[in-house]
Amino acid sequence: MIDKKSPVPIYHQLEELIKSQIESGQLQPNQAIPSEREYSEQFQISRMTVRQALTNLVNEGLLYRKKGTGTFISERKVEQVLQGLSSFSEEMLERGLTPSSAILSYEIVPANATVAQKLEIELESPVLQIERIRFADNVPMAIETAFMPKNLAEGFSEELAKDSIYQFIKEKLSLQIDEANQELEAVIASEHEAKYLQIKKGSPILKITRVTYLEDRTPFEYVKSSFRADRYRFNIQLKRH
Amino acid sequence: MIDKKSPVPIYHQLEELIKSQIESGQLQPNQAIPSEREYSEQFQISRMTVRQALTNLVNEGLLYRKKGTGTFISERKVEQVLQGLSSFSEEMLERGLTPSSAILSYEIVPANATVAQKLEIELESPVLQIERIRFADNVPMAIETAFMPKNLAEGFSEELAKDSIYQFIKEKLSLQIDEANQELEAVIASEHEAKYLQIKKGSPILKITRVTYLEDRTPFEYVKSSFRADRYRFNIQLKRH
Repeated sequence: MIDKKSPVPIYHQLEELIKSQIESGQLQPNQAIPSEREYSEQFQISRMTVRQALTNLVNEGLLYRKKGTGTFISERKVEQVLQGLSSFSEEMLERGLTPSSAILSYEIVPANATVAQKLEIELESPVLQIERIRFADNVPMAIETAFMPKNLAEGFSEELAKDSIYQFIKEKLSLQIDEANQELEAVIASEHEAKYLQIKKGSPILKITRVTYLEDRTPFEYVKSSFRADRYRFNIQLKRH
Repeated sequence: MIDKKSPVPIYHQLEELIKSQIESGQLQPNQAIPSEREYSEQFQISRMTVRQALTNLVNEGLLYRKKGTGTFISERKVEQVLQGLSSFSEEMLERGLTPSSAILSYEIVPANATVAQKLEIELESPVLQIERIRFADNVPMAIETAFMPKNLAEGFSEELAKDSIYQFIKEKLSLQIDEANQELEAVIASEHEAKYLQIKKGSPILKITRVTYLEDRTPFEYVKSSFRADRYRFNIQLKRH
């Protein structure tokens, strides 16, 4: 299993070994893994080497540590396929998870420079700003702030904001959603994000900003979402031109 | 600029103000921003509020701190458009940046469980493993480990590995690259990654794993790349089905 004569560093061999045990299902989510001492004795390697391997796997989000109790296997990440344009609610339902939302704030604010530019409206025009936590099976997955031009948000309500905004656009306004431009970045969780996502400060976050357009190319929503990187990843199929 | 009567928290207003100054070009990359004390006096707000705003912008990668000297505007991120399938070299050239590589290791190794599964070959079959740092205009952008089945790597060399592997496949082997499956995650930089990417431990990393297929659906490359999240982001255009 661990080959001390290999040119591959031992800590990396141990990482790969644990990864394959996770992939094969030998190690299950939320199961405790052996201690540093146990790995060290089993493979006759130093505890520092074991620690390096485990730290790398924690940083990758495959393991998590719990103070005083040990190191555990993380939940599998929810994989979002970037093929067509779909909403958080649709994505979760497709995976057999139940989406829900908690509203942190719901108010009309004047558009700042970024919001005005993204929504192609004048600076300080009134926009509806909604901050929500998005859950999948009651686990917080993302915190997002959405902006909609006020005139497109007529008839929208805090109650409706618990469900999909896309659904409101389609069903209540009978408008066609056409396409979105989406940016993906990796950042470190702010205190605010860490608190609501129930993760540690300093944890990685997948940050997505998306502008969604109606058929006539009117931007109707600008949204900034922070996804827990330990529970979320993206998959994309690329075709050579 | 800062409206103390607004329901929007003051630290957030300051963040948005600095962001719009970056977007408008008023603040330029590598330029020092005012100190905490200066912001605090200018807007009559507490230094703690200023600190919170600046920390959030550092976490987002828009600002960076230099010990003893102050806080500066980050370089703009290189934006990779996920439309068709292209190589790192092609992407950088398209942006007017000069791609280059440094080889960290180049060797034949037995395929571990993950590599064997991704390349659809038998466990322990020989694969060429290449670890490279990828530069754009001599700035380290990514560190990657690529695996190719040994039989497809005949004629490949450490010298050729400084250029694009895709180019080798096309020009030397006359094989057609067809499509790739790509996964995107956010993780925290390991010590190894931080060292070669010249970033701080604990910095965010955009991690991409990609399997590329030939026209006959043979996987010819499995690659794990760690991109500096402070210099890189992805853009994707999504169409409603």
